[in-house]
Amino acid sequence: MDVATVVGVMLGFMVVIGAIVAGGGAAMFLHIPSLAITMGGMLCATLIHFSLPQFLGIFSVIKKTIVAEIPSPSQLIQKMVNCAAINRRDGALALEQEIHNVDDLFFVKGLQMLVDGQDSEEIRELLSMEVQHLQDRHSTGKKILEFMGAAAPAFGMIGTLIGLVQMLRSLDSPESIGAGMAVALLTTFYGALSANLIFIPLAGKLGIYSKAETTAMEMITEGVCAIARGDNPTIVREKMQAFVSQSRRQEIKANV
Amino acid sequence: MDVATVVGVMLGFMVVIGAIVAGGGAAMFLHIPSLAITMGGMLCATLIHFSLPQFLGIFSVIKKTIVAEIPSPSQLIQKMVNCAAINRRDGALALEQEIHNVDDLFFVKGLQMLVDGQDSEEIRELLSMEVQHLQDRHSTGKKILEFMGAAAPAFGMIGTLIGLVQMLRSLDSPESIGAGMAVALLTTFYGALSANLIFIPLAGKLGIYSKAETTAMEMITEGVCAIARGDNPTIVREKMQAFVSQSRRQEIKANV
Amino acid sequence: MDVATVVGVMLGFMVVIGAIVAGGGAAMFLHIPSLAITMGGMLCATLIHFSLPQFLGIFSVIKKTIVAEIPSPSQLIQKMVNCAAINRRDGALALEQEIHNVDDLFFVKGLQMLVDGQDSEEIRELLSMEVQHLQDRHSTGKKILEFMGAAAPAFGMIGTLIGLVQMLRSLDSPESIGAGMAVALLTTFYGALSANLIFIPLAGKLGIYSKAETTAMEMITEGVCAIARGDNPTIVREKMQAFVSQSRRQEIKANV
Amino acid sequence: MDVATVVGVMLGFMVVIGAIVAGGGAAMFLHIPSLAITMGGMLCATLIHFSLPQFLGIFSVIKKTIVAEIPSPSQLIQKMVNCAAINRRDGALALEQEIHNVDDLFFVKGLQMLVDGQDSEEIRELLSMEVQHLQDRHSTGKKILEFMGAAAPAFGMIGTLIGLVQMLRSLDSPESIGAGMAVALLTTFYGALSANLIFIPLAGKLGIYSKAETTAMEMITEGVCAIARGDNPTIVREKMQAFVSQSRRQEIKANV
Amino acid sequence: MDVATVVGVMLGFMVVIGAIVAGGGAAMFLHIPSLAITMGGMLCATLIHFSLPQFLGIFSVIKKTIVAEIPSPSQLIQKMVNCAAINRRDGALALEQEIHNVDDLFFVKGLQMLVDGQDSEEIRELLSMEVQHLQDRHSTGKKILEFMGAAAPAFGMIGTLIGLVQMLRSLDSPESIGAGMAVALLTTFYGALSANLIFIPLAGKLGIYSKAETTAMEMITEGVCAIARGDNPTIVREKMQAFVSQSRRQEIKANV
Repeated sequence: MDVATVVGVMLGFMVVIGAIVAGGGAAMFLHIPSLAITMGGMLCATLIHFSLPQFLGIFSVIKKTIVAEIPSPSQLIQKMVNCAAINRRDGALALEQEIHNVDDLFFVKGLQMLVDGQDSEEIRELLSMEVQHLQDRHSTGKKILEFMGAAAPAFGMIGTLIGLVQMLRSLDSPESIGAGMAVALLTTFYGALSANLIFIPLAGKLGIYSKAETTAMEMITEGVCAIARGDNPTIVREKMQAFVSQSRRQEIKANV
Repeated sequence: MDVATVVGVMLGFMVVIGAIVAGGGAAMFLHIPSLAITMGGMLCATLIHFSLPQFLGIFSVIKKTIVAEIPSPSQLIQKMVNCAAINRRDGALALEQEIHNVDDLFFVKGLQMLVDGQDSEEIRELLSMEVQHLQDRHSTGKKILEFMGAAAPAFGMIGTLIGLVQMLRSLDSPESIGAGMAVALLTTFYGALSANLIFIPLAGKLGIYSKAETTAMEMITEGVCAIARGDNPTIVREKMQAFVSQSRRQEIKANV
Repeated sequence: MDVATVVGVMLGFMVVIGAIVAGGGAAMFLHIPSLAITMGGMLCATLIHFSLPQFLGIFSVIKKTIVAEIPSPSQLIQKMVNCAAINRRDGALALEQEIHNVDDLFFVKGLQMLVDGQDSEEIRELLSMEVQHLQDRHSTGKKILEFMGAAAPAFGMIGTLIGLVQMLRSLDSPESIGAGMAVALLTTFYGALSANLIFIPLAGKLGIYSKAETTAMEMITEGVCAIARGDNPTIVREKMQAFVSQSRRQEIKANV
Repeated sequence: MDVATVVGVMLGFMVVIGAIVAGGGAAMFLHIPSLAITMGGMLCATLIHFSLPQFLGIFSVIKKTIVAEIPSPSQLIQKMVNCAAINRRDGALALEQEIHNVDDLFFVKGLQMLVDGQDSEEIRELLSMEVQHLQDRHSTGKKILEFMGAAAPAFGMIGTLIGLVQMLRSLDSPESIGAGMAVALLTTFYGALSANLIFIPLAGKLGIYSKAETTAMEMITEGVCAIARGDNPTIVREKMQAFVSQSRRQEIKANV
Repeated sequence: MDVATVVGVMLGFMVVIGAIVAGGGAAMFLHIPSLAITMGGMLCATLIHFSLPQFLGIFSVIKKTIVAEIPSPSQLIQKMVNCAAINRRDGALALEQEIHNVDDLFFVKGLQMLVDGQDSEEIRELLSMEVQHLQDRHSTGKKILEFMGAAAPAFGMIGTLIGLVQMLRSLDSPESIGAGMAVALLTTFYGALSANLIFIPLAGKLGIYSKAETTAMEMITEGVCAIARGDNPTIVREKMQAFVSQSRRQEIKANV
């Protein structure tokens, strides 16, 4: 689970609610019609922009930013080096046993192709295509969240314009001006808060995840192809370490 | 028909109209002169920006975002595999019968070239050119909608400036200030609403369609070229499936 | 002449002037000092940004967006096919007669090179260089108009700031507040109107023209090179039609 | 000297000062503390953003946009053609005399390499590297000016926020409101004016110069390399003219 | 230590504080709750956007912009030329002594590979990978600072909206309006100041450093590879000088 996302969202709302409560009159900040027009308008625009399956996939995209697990590079390298050793000692068929010890579906797919005896080029082509598909899906998820982050403030402003026009039409009682204006500003507040605390940062997180996951998959591709070419375990380790920064490499050595 | 576009637009207007009616005085939100300057100015700017045929094509572009049908990948693959089998069994001329069972004009064109005995490279070159043309046309449509989405708020602001200057010149009666200001804000409201609920999301939808349609055409190109090279049906299927994500591929297998 | 540009600008001003007159007091919208600071500041910034010859070329650039003629693709193709037939029948020297029937200077240049007996590669290199130069010149014109479209609202805002400071310094008579504020807003109005109705759409139109003209020149280049290689008229037609969309191609066939 | 830059800046300030004087009370527009916070803040941000040598180079960068001389293409071509003729007639060593007639340091460098007998490829590699360096330096200068153009309005707004907070805290005397607000707006005015009349257009001018200078250097490179390969003067002229537009080429022919 | 960064930040705050103190009532500009919501919200959004290790690395990133030392090109060139001379005279093993005289870890790594007898291509591949990793890390640091520079004003605006709503709800006492509005504006002030004086310029500085450090590493790579190929010291010097501008080259010659 991604603690940073959860803690960030919770702390962020605590900071905002704290500021509201400290100023007094927290109740007036919850105004269902204002919330309805900001979020409703934003969701309708998102529905028009994207296809229905993409729109319905928003929740799984958001869930992904919270629960995603990136396989640790050091574990990936260690497992792949083991596989290389087994392949050298007992041949590719002996890797069939190893498949059950691997959780990552992409890794399993690569090992299965080794067991099936496909050659290095075939494996690279197929696995690269999978990586491409993952990036496409992530990129659509990121675009949806970015569009929501742009649409929410826009509909917040539209709601404020509606509120201002209604307030300006009934200027008879001076007291009502302040109240009307306060309500009118709430939609802008909802739009700005949801965009800047939720949609824009989550879109960014999805980009961070996408890059990490892609790197892990490229490491696996590189490792499986090296095994398919019959490289010895030391060379497999070196080829995979090329994706890891110098300081991480020393951690990996320490761990292993 | 694209339900998402229609439902999104309708729900969006219901949300906005609901907020207006709930606040009372819905009648004051319909102000024909304000609508005329915002939409009129935006259309004039669009007319200046684009050529006359491009401008007149806006409606067919908008219609396209509502009624477009993307051929289903699984059907495409199944039909192409059938064609590959017929080609193998009875030769390319036998495909002439199949052409009548295919709706997609692009698919028909590819099959016709197979029947005419053109080779794989010629077919690929011609079909790729068609894909390029489609992308160009879609991209122009997207640019028009994006420009309208930028021009509408701009002319909304111009209308508000006109209204503000007129209101400020006649500050004698305090009651008229509010009313004048309310009318002045209406153009900004029209511009922001039309841009964020119509033009910007429709431009996005056109991009989504363009990508889906392009992918389908690339799948057909790949399949037809494989048949032209005499590949067997299994290889044709594999080559076309490369464009489909892992999960969709399993659906396809389940269906077929 | 480009009717869309002329009609768009005229209609646009009619819409805006209509809105001004309908609200009453049209005279107050014409304020020469406000116009002077907005347009003057914008022109000075443009003069600083670009070189003197580029600045002085603005008018010919604007004129171009109104009077430019794009040669019709079907006429181009027909003329080139005729030339290909003449070349095949009577040799390249016979094309000298044809040159007098061609208006387009670029086409003339290509035919002259054919008559001079230059080979296909030399012709392509020289003509491509011409296309490159045209694109460069168009791109500078577009940048000037885009900069004017950005500078006009900026100097409108600067004018409004000057007006606001002057108004705020003399708050003694309440009546004067409205009048001062109205005048202050005029510069923002001028800047926004000129940018959104003139400069930005004209920059866009220049881009549309540039693309159409470039495509026509690329078609001519392709046709002349095909003739230089001695291709038969049918192949010349096919190569040039590659630049035209499917529906346009059928029109061409119908016309010819 | 670049007349356009000097005239543009002077005219621009005359337009703005004219508008200020015409409205009365020009003295209130000169407020040293407001100027200090806008320009001071902007300079500090620039100092943080760039390295000290880059920051100290701003003045020479600005000076460059005023005094830079771009060598005329027609003179460059004429001189190079002369050199080609000398090289053909008397050999490369005879070019040593010519070096004293050339002002441009880059041209001198190219000739010197010809005299030293370096071959065409070595000359091209070294001269291209020089062009690359010039572009890098120009691009840094442009980035500094663009950053200043973005930072000035930002610190103008920060100054206005400070002024507004101070004014709002002492609302007792209604007269002071207008005066306080007027002073608060001055920083925004200074920021917007300096950015739009100085920094942004100067950054643009630097880009125009950089392109012109780069083109001249590429023409020299092309010419010197042609001489090194022993091309005859006519071919040297043709190769250099490839960089000049059709209409300029006719001017050049007329002049020569 | 980077004096420009430290001096810029200190001078910047002095300018702003000076403006505040000069206007009187400096105490009201320090409002802890306003600071808490602006900075707290910004930090939470950053925490959501980036992964936990990236977020925790912010301080080392900021520290880097202050203390980073870029090795001087002239020293690098001199040391590399010495190494080339030693390599020529006494063989690669003699370079082991030199390693102790070099501070730069990247330089040490290159020399160590020379001593180990790795060939030119292996050295280039490994060192280039290191450069790539450094650029990736710098680019992440830059993105974090840029995101903070965008999030701070956004949460400043959110804080101002909260303050405005609270103020508008209690319009009974006219005196409180000004005070409430003043406090509401403080969050916008904090957001704008921190973004424009800290985050955005520091992100820029990181980019400047990244480029300088990358260039130094590329010079070292070029030099070490030249030594590995057995180039003589003069050629090593020339190859490294290719990265330095003409004027800097003369300084280097003067120093050496």
